[in-house]
Amino acid sequence: MHTSFVIRTRGPGLYDFTGEVARWVAGDGLLTLFVRHTSCSLLIQENADPDVQIDLMAWFERLVPPSDDPSMSYLRHVTEGPDDMPAHIKAALLPVSLQIPVADDRMDLGTWQGIYLFEHRAQPHSREVSAMMVPDG
Amino acid sequence: MHTSFVIRTRGPGLYDFTGEVARWVAGDGLLTLFVRHTSCSLLIQENADPDVQIDLMAWFERLVPPSDDPSMSYLRHVTEGPDDMPAHIKAALLPVSLQIPVADDRMDLGTWQGIYLFEHRAQPHSREVSAMMVPDG
Amino acid sequence: MHTSFVIRTRGPGLYDFTGEVARWVAGDGLLTLFVRHTSCSLLIQENADPDVQIDLMAWFERLVPPSDDPSMSYLRHVTEGPDDMPAHIKAALLPVSLQIPVADDRMDLGTWQGIYLFEHRAQPHSREVSAMMVPDG
Repeated sequence: MHTSFVIRTRGPGLYDFTGEVARWVAGDGLLTLFVRHTSCSLLIQENADPDVQIDLMAWFERLVPPSDDPSMSYLRHVTEGPDDMPAHIKAALLPVSLQIPVADDRMDLGTWQGIYLFEHRAQPHSREVSAMMVPDG
Repeated sequence: MHTSFVIRTRGPGLYDFTGEVARWVAGDGLLTLFVRHTSCSLLIQENADPDVQIDLMAWFERLVPPSDDPSMSYLRHVTEGPDDMPAHIKAALLPVSLQIPVADDRMDLGTWQGIYLFEHRAQPHSREVSAMMVPDG
Repeated sequence: MHTSFVIRTRGPGLYDFTGEVARWVAGDGLLTLFVRHTSCSLLIQENADPDVQIDLMAWFERLVPPSDDPSMSYLRHVTEGPDDMPAHIKAALLPVSLQIPVADDRMDLGTWQGIYLFEHRAQPHSREVSAMMVPDG
């Protein structure tokens, strides 16, 4: 069982698409989500307090500043904008794919876990997530 | 084939549960381990010298200090204790799931690889790891 | 369907093995690549501008300096060389496994995504990647 989800982003941030995935999964098996880009990520994170997402973004922004920040002056890949190479670095640090067991038509997520597309670029993008469910034996 | 493992933690650290998983897997297929929480992680790491684990924890503690450290004063999600938001950040940086090929009833781990639950919170917790094996075709 | 790839490395860097994997996959299902070591990683990254790889390595080298750097003097696991404990730390931060949906004999990679072995050690190594394809239901 194979499909793809399209997530439209409007700048850096976490975009919750747990509901879309929940409606698609069925039966018993292993769900894989795979993002077909190298400047955004997938992430499972807390879905309760929105401050968690604000803090996460603030922390990653400090860890990987824009390439026009003086501390990043050694970077070479800068022609596509100051948010481009930092986006590739964040995409290395954060998951390109997620795997979640599914039983009785439901993902086995914990109570506080949501599924997010983590956009690292400043401009709006249309992000494609490839999804596959392989059956439990 | 689907089960869950419960790992009881007593503060920050790496808890080896390779043996429990090794006893459960069977046949040929893909094993997935998925942790149902957003303040601890799963990790495959060196299982030989215990200093590796001590150094890993020390490094992550310096990368992500407690939220009452002056360098973290910008954080908002602080009401659940100084170890809470750093735990969410570490949970973003480290795996929420692991996948290991299994052949002839054995995980295809390297000699020096062990499977760990990496606890990021200070208080004792009971952590649930969802496990699924899907068959090789 | 299970095999292994051997990647010979000659010091730190990203080694592209997308082509070898592309020739091996077949049918429809989920591909998993799993590296059987704790001092190198797997990574999906941009395959267009080689400067992206140079910048990625430079950034990780600054985030995790060699253990003989004064900022790393707290490390204990140092007898196997200044690149050893940093390699374990990078192996915790970067993926030990990758999962990619396969449809009609082709990995569902994005246009700019390549598959790399990210070597963290200074000396040449022979790295083994366990590969499994489980069938789509």
